[in-house]
Amino acid sequence: RLSYSPEFQSAQAMLAEFMTSIGMTVTIDAIGNLIGTYPGRDNSLAPVCCGSHLDSVPNGGSFDGALGIVTALECVRSWHADNWQPLRPVKVIAFVEEEGSRFGSVCFGSRAMAGELYGTDPDALQSSEGHTLKEFLADCQLDTHPFDKETSLPTNASFVELHIEQGAALAESGCSVGVVTAIAGIKRLHVIIKGKANHAGSTAMHRRQDALVAASSLVNFVYENALAAQEIYVATVGKLEVFPNAENVIPGEVRLTIEMRSADTDVLEAAKEKIMRQYLQISTEYKVTIETASEYNVAPMPMDKELIKTITEASDGLGIEYQLLPSWAGHDAMIIGRYIPTAMIFVPSINGISHSPLELSEWPAIEKATQVLDSTLKTLASK
Amino acid sequence: RLSYSPEFQSAQAMLAEFMTSIGMTVTIDAIGNLIGTYPGRDNSLAPVCCGSHLDSVPNGGSFDGALGIVTALECVRSWHADNWQPLRPVKVIAFVEEEGSRFGSVCFGSRAMAGELYGTDPDALQSSEGHTLKEFLADCQLDTHPFDKETSLPTNASFVELHIEQGAALAESGCSVGVVTAIAGIKRLHVIIKGKANHAGSTAMHRRQDALVAASSLVNFVYENALAAQEIYVATVGKLEVFPNAENVIPGEVRLTIEMRSADTDVLEAAKEKIMRQYLQISTEYKVTIETASEYNVAPMPMDKELIKTITEASDGLGIEYQLLPSWAGHDAMIIGRYIPTAMIFVPSINGISHSPLELSEWPAIEKATQVLDSTLKTLASK
Repeated sequence: RLSYSPEFQSAQAMLAEFMTSIGMTVTIDAIGNLIGTYPGRDNSLAPVCCGSHLDSVPNGGSFDGALGIVTALECVRSWHADNWQPLRPVKVIAFVEEEGSRFGSVCFGSRAMAGELYGTDPDALQSSEGHTLKEFLADCQLDTHPFDKETSLPTNASFVELHIEQGAALAESGCSVGVVTAIAGIKRLHVIIKGKANHAGSTAMHRRQDALVAASSLVNFVYENALAAQEIYVATVGKLEVFPNAENVIPGEVRLTIEMRSADTDVLEAAKEKIMRQYLQISTEYKVTIETASEYNVAPMPMDKELIKTITEASDGLGIEYQLLPSWAGHDAMIIGRYIPTAMIFVPSINGISHSPLELSEWPAIEKATQVLDSTLKTLASK
Repeated sequence: RLSYSPEFQSAQAMLAEFMTSIGMTVTIDAIGNLIGTYPGRDNSLAPVCCGSHLDSVPNGGSFDGALGIVTALECVRSWHADNWQPLRPVKVIAFVEEEGSRFGSVCFGSRAMAGELYGTDPDALQSSEGHTLKEFLADCQLDTHPFDKETSLPTNASFVELHIEQGAALAESGCSVGVVTAIAGIKRLHVIIKGKANHAGSTAMHRRQDALVAASSLVNFVYENALAAQEIYVATVGKLEVFPNAENVIPGEVRLTIEMRSADTDVLEAAKEKIMRQYLQISTEYKVTIETASEYNVAPMPMDKELIKTITEASDGLGIEYQLLPSWAGHDAMIIGRYIPTAMIFVPSINGISHSPLELSEWPAIEKATQVLDSTLKTLASK
């Protein structure tokens, strides 16, 4: 279900039909987010929003995103079947393009809804296959300007997103329901290590200034520290390039990226400080220079404390055990949380697998999480 | 002086003119090696050969290769001036394309002379700029098949190559003359490390199978061992590639090359064995697989013991101090040494610099080395 693809459009049409069948009114906004509204007794009140994203990565699984939409609709379906009407309207949103597969920009649909792309030229956005956003929108019969509103988020609303964990914390603990405390922030250091390229034969070992040996020492330092931090933060060197990268030349330069994630900004800063201090030791030992050429930061997004309380009380009321945990991956809730109170409910992913056809969450856990979501939405929509 | 370039042709013409002026006969073989022959009293005897290569790397220095030709010609010039004629003929060879800059194949001219390229199709060889060898040869007025002889090396001859060290052993010891014991062999291990690509955020540190962390541990192991080996061998990881090499994905695979050089085959084998044993420890610690996908070997080339003795006795006779040392870089002498007795005399490179305009050898050292070469050639050509 790549955003705007025939498969995506077909899934969206199926959802719209189902929404209509359970008493919801359906709209699709200018960027392609599908919004079903279940009317409240007082529709002048701010709505309670829920849902997740409808798109998937190429060759992705069945649960990532879709589960948050399907479970929200199951709640509404049961209300409709029971003839229960909340005080406030309840909106189920099926976001488009959360994965960023089309334009390399994650949470694209939620950012558009929140007005973060206000003023962007839709012709300037091109997919890797060379199609513009406007072409995709036209293919979906969406022909108005997607970025001409400062925001389309309902005022004073709240948002609850149910999602698979995409990690293995719940699978390891055996708990069926996760309540997200915060979505981890990201700190990326773009590091350049400069030594001296030289003949791999005639340069004696003690005369070398090998940028890759220095980089390797840094990679291991970053890993060992994060491992010792017991999951307070994670750190990865995912990208590393060697220059000139020839079999018989001592590497003169290495460029690498250190990515750290934590729900706590202070932890990220402390980890960075420790790494920067290590630069000095490594540069002395291997006679190289090390510098952070640039830094990229996404602040952690704490979930709304009141909403967390509503969810945990709902769990307690149902006698369902829950586990408080951070989300290490980004979600639409990270964007929406910047503007309105937002929270997330996690369902375990078997072996932590996601973005793969092997992605799997088990129905007993999904049922429990859906009961918690249902109770939470009922409470929020009733006051 | 890239091989076959206008600059190369101009240098070759200048050498030919000089050779003629000092009583030598001049030929250029089918691949472009220039050979000057100084007649002996008995030209039916096998010749004594000397010289080095005329080509340079792009933006190279003035000494690498050229020095071995110029010093040999200086010996012959002095004999001619003194009206001294040796018993045997003496050939000064200016090899073409030792650096491999044109076709990526080092010692190309000496390999052609030795018949190692016998039967090769000259049209099949193309430079990085898209010119065939035949085009280069035609540009130099060479129009016969360069690879139609099984060998063009003179039978029963010997070969002495004077060259800059391209390392810093002599510069560090302060000795002006190096006598090469052996040209180091090369062992390259092409290593593939497979872990598991995964989300850099949601994959807990203790669940990772990070191929780059494992590779980094291996890079440091290779370096530390070679450093501790006190120049018995050198080892380099010059080439390393990460897959998928994305900032937010744990590396699933790393491919790298370990290059080791030593004058002693047993040392190379022992170093390899130690590295292979480490594979086991690293693969267990980081939950990855490590395999040597392929191995490339160039055997060490010991220099001829009789010739070494002739050179050291020449030094002793002149009261010039010499140092026995291996050559860590490859040379034409490595090829020629496979067929006829061969030896090398080294001149110090200041700071070990080569393949750079900063390459520098000082005249007092060059003078001493040339005196040793002169005495050596005289001895060899007189018996």
